[in-house]
Amino acid sequence: MGKGIISRERLLVVVSAPSGAGKTSLCERTAAELPDLVHAVSFTTRPPRPHERDGRDYYFVDQQTFQRMIDKGEFFEWAEVHGHLYGTARSELEKHLAEGKDVALDIDTQGAKQMKRIFPQGVFIFIVPPSLKMLEERLRRRKTDSEAEIRRRLKKALEEIRYYKEYQYVIVNDTFKRAVSEMKAIITAERCKSFRMDLSFLREGS
Amino acid sequence: MGKGIISRERLLVVVSAPSGAGKTSLCERTAAELPDLVHAVSFTTRPPRPHERDGRDYYFVDQQTFQRMIDKGEFFEWAEVHGHLYGTARSELEKHLAEGKDVALDIDTQGAKQMKRIFPQGVFIFIVPPSLKMLEERLRRRKTDSEAEIRRRLKKALEEIRYYKEYQYVIVNDTFKRAVSEMKAIITAERCKSFRMDLSFLREGS
Repeated sequence: MGKGIISRERLLVVVSAPSGAGKTSLCERTAAELPDLVHAVSFTTRPPRPHERDGRDYYFVDQQTFQRMIDKGEFFEWAEVHGHLYGTARSELEKHLAEGKDVALDIDTQGAKQMKRIFPQGVFIFIVPPSLKMLEERLRRRKTDSEAEIRRRLKKALEEIRYYKEYQYVIVNDTFKRAVSEMKAIITAERCKSFRMDLSFLREGS
Repeated sequence: MGKGIISRERLLVVVSAPSGAGKTSLCERTAAELPDLVHAVSFTTRPPRPHERDGRDYYFVDQQTFQRMIDKGEFFEWAEVHGHLYGTARSELEKHLAEGKDVALDIDTQGAKQMKRIFPQGVFIFIVPPSLKMLEERLRRRKTDSEAEIRRRLKKALEEIRYYKEYQYVIVNDTFKRAVSEMKAIITAERCKSFRMDLSFLREGS
């Protein structure tokens, strides 16, 4: 029991969203504001965008390195999205869990499906834009994608949104502040789930 | 859809606790702080304690009135606890739900069991004291119960705590402020549950 504190399982929080819905910044901010939550960084072969930093937003690696990691079984899940590879390294997750932290991962819908099979007790959150118009605006504002790329991402977003019920929670990202506060609430609530708790310290004689 | 806002089912939140764990004040404060949440007041035949107000903490009625309400089927659930009757009136609940509010009820563990059968999609929260010693102290501090009554309540509390896994959530009431913030988080999270949401507005053309 340690200092009379309730013991509970660590949380694995998986956050997915159509491109442009802002899942990476949401995970980063939430982890910065909530004690004992860490944002686990994914690996990708996609080139960094201007504001992105290696080791914070992603670990940016080349195709060859990524392939070597696949071959060695170093990923819990990996997927190809819009022509680039993305993956969650076992080492990254295990490091944080060993430190007794809850871990938030932002991964695409394919990767989330794989994680759900491995961690059925994980917490799965889907971020949606407040409207399709807003999603399109956000993709255009980024100014990094070609028109064809934007159309492709929008079409994929529409397909993905259809499966939102496969996630336990949905956050509508209308304002970033509100989305962060909802994500914090979800994690706080999940920490209170009775099935994760051991209340044996509340027995007669204690 | 109304103003482009997501439609969702209303929440019924049921809060139980061993006596002295502070469930009534917790519901009141949470409802005061969280928009669109109302604390539904129960009926009881127990005499009011000094700080309690009729219509805020309980509707205090006599045995005869309570019995007439039972006969007319006016309760969703009722139970006898420590020699007094407690019940949740249908009218009280329906009034708040009709106004589009989420409703929090504080009811004992017997009543909560009945509510779970009627509202399986409700949110069930169990409040526990941080220790048994603390529970005993709180019962004594109230100075309204005899020694025999205190022993009886403590014994019942121990029995009830054993069944905490029948509730989805557990809040450890170590500080009132923290308990309120966890209860707010739970309700906010439950409002984000995907099965309560209708995202059909996020379809092509909208």
